[in-house]
Amino acid sequence: MFKTSFTIEWGDCDEAGIVFYPNYFYWLDCAFHHFLRERGLSQRELRKRFGAVTPIVAAHADFKAPARYDDILDVEVSVQKLGETRFQADYKFSSGGKLVGTGYETRAWATVNADGTIKGKPLDAEFLSILGIT
Amino acid sequence: MFKTSFTIEWGDCDEAGIVFYPNYFYWLDCAFHHFLRERGLSQRELRKRFGAVTPIVAAHADFKAPARYDDILDVEVSVQKLGETRFQADYKFSSGGKLVGTGYETRAWATVNADGTIKGKPLDAEFLSILGIT
Amino acid sequence: MFKTSFTIEWGDCDEAGIVFYPNYFYWLDCAFHHFLRERGLSQRELRKRFGAVTPIVAAHADFKAPARYDDILDVEVSVQKLGETRFQADYKFSSGGKLVGTGYETRAWATVNADGTIKGKPLDAEFLSILGIT
Amino acid sequence: MFKTSFTIEWGDCDEAGIVFYPNYFYWLDCAFHHFLRERGLSQRELRKRFGAVTPIVAAHADFKAPARYDDILDVEVSVQKLGETRFQADYKFSSGGKLVGTGYETRAWATVNADGTIKGKPLDAEFLSILGIT
Repeated sequence: MFKTSFTIEWGDCDEAGIVFYPNYFYWLDCAFHHFLRERGLSQRELRKRFGAVTPIVAAHADFKAPARYDDILDVEVSVQKLGETRFQADYKFSSGGKLVGTGYETRAWATVNADGTIKGKPLDAEFLSILGIT
Repeated sequence: MFKTSFTIEWGDCDEAGIVFYPNYFYWLDCAFHHFLRERGLSQRELRKRFGAVTPIVAAHADFKAPARYDDILDVEVSVQKLGETRFQADYKFSSGGKLVGTGYETRAWATVNADGTIKGKPLDAEFLSILGIT
Repeated sequence: MFKTSFTIEWGDCDEAGIVFYPNYFYWLDCAFHHFLRERGLSQRELRKRFGAVTPIVAAHADFKAPARYDDILDVEVSVQKLGETRFQADYKFSSGGKLVGTGYETRAWATVNADGTIKGKPLDAEFLSILGIT
Repeated sequence: MFKTSFTIEWGDCDEAGIVFYPNYFYWLDCAFHHFLRERGLSQRELRKRFGAVTPIVAAHADFKAPARYDDILDVEVSVQKLGETRFQADYKFSSGGKLVGTGYETRAWATVNADGTIKGKPLDAEFLSILGIT
């Protein structure tokens, strides 16, 4: 289980004084990058080392309680394999020990062609090993 | 079926040259507001007229194809009732006739107490009528 | 004088119910792109045709009145040359005929090297001609 | 001198792989809030304790070098009085010891009327004392 945290800033909240919900997806995406980084990877490293990207296929969140300006948002990340070509990052986000919501991102594995287009491929074994989901 | 459109701007895209996905949720939320507005409502009007808000309960998107800077994103919105206290806005978003993705937002109906807290309530009949889902 | 417009959305405003000010710079940047586009250019076209980019050197805004959710923000753009290597886009933004603010962006002209680094260069005469500031 | 830091995330960068500049203003605004918070204040506290807000009057940034995904942005904040009714927050932002840019925000002092409108006022002595600029 990987954990990371974000401070909810003034500009992240809407007129109702609570987080404008698309920002939660920004933090989920950030949390996935933090998770990769802790394992020595980054989007750039992925591209250089594997010639690959991890395009988003689906994103979902269930919201349980609002969070506000100055709150710390703690995000837990875990990953699982979904068949041969996709994986899922599961998220649980809370503040002060209170559950704010849960969510997931489904991502594919794709290699980048010389012309910049991408092509879906079976998940790379080394990548899965780095993620700890072999 | 309500339709609205957005121009994808330079700042909406990431280093890969495609829309940074949380921005799609920004546009879904905007599309819901445009839909309300077309029916004479707004968040402020909702608050004033019904003493109510429509808190987000869940959000989901499936991404089919990338969209890029300078593309026009066309969003179709339709709404449906989900039980007594919730409704769902369904979205289909495309660019140049090509499907980019689909998604939905589940929203509750809640009235605002004097102290600013909110309380879930059965969906207001007049609100449903305005949405065309009585 | 080039003019373009934006709808101020719910998610663009902060808890005080007014536009969160960094968003104005998003719109100024968008307005510059709309201006380029009207003249047949885009960031991608600039890169392809001139091998060049227009890095931001300075940005400034003076705010005169707040703008809110559902307001239309009208932005006027004009450009001027600043010496041999820089140009400035000047902005005036208003809503419903009321001045909301003014601002500017100073941008340089730079060509992109094979390794991705950039090098400042004198402004290209054809680019200036397209901008109408020869 | 107050210092705070931000991690530059994937979604903060544009297609050129560098920070989309309006995001710097988001961080400047955040840095001002972090500074207030360190001194026991927040926007909400300001409102409750002084019945006041600090509306933005002007914002400026000069950009010296680009910053990228995964970089840590260190922001230094200092404040000064500007006449009777305004103050300025000055910023210096760098990454890995390399100057990325400098900037400032000019803010006014205003009290909130019962109807929600605001009225400019001379800067409160206690507020100035908290900021350390009496």
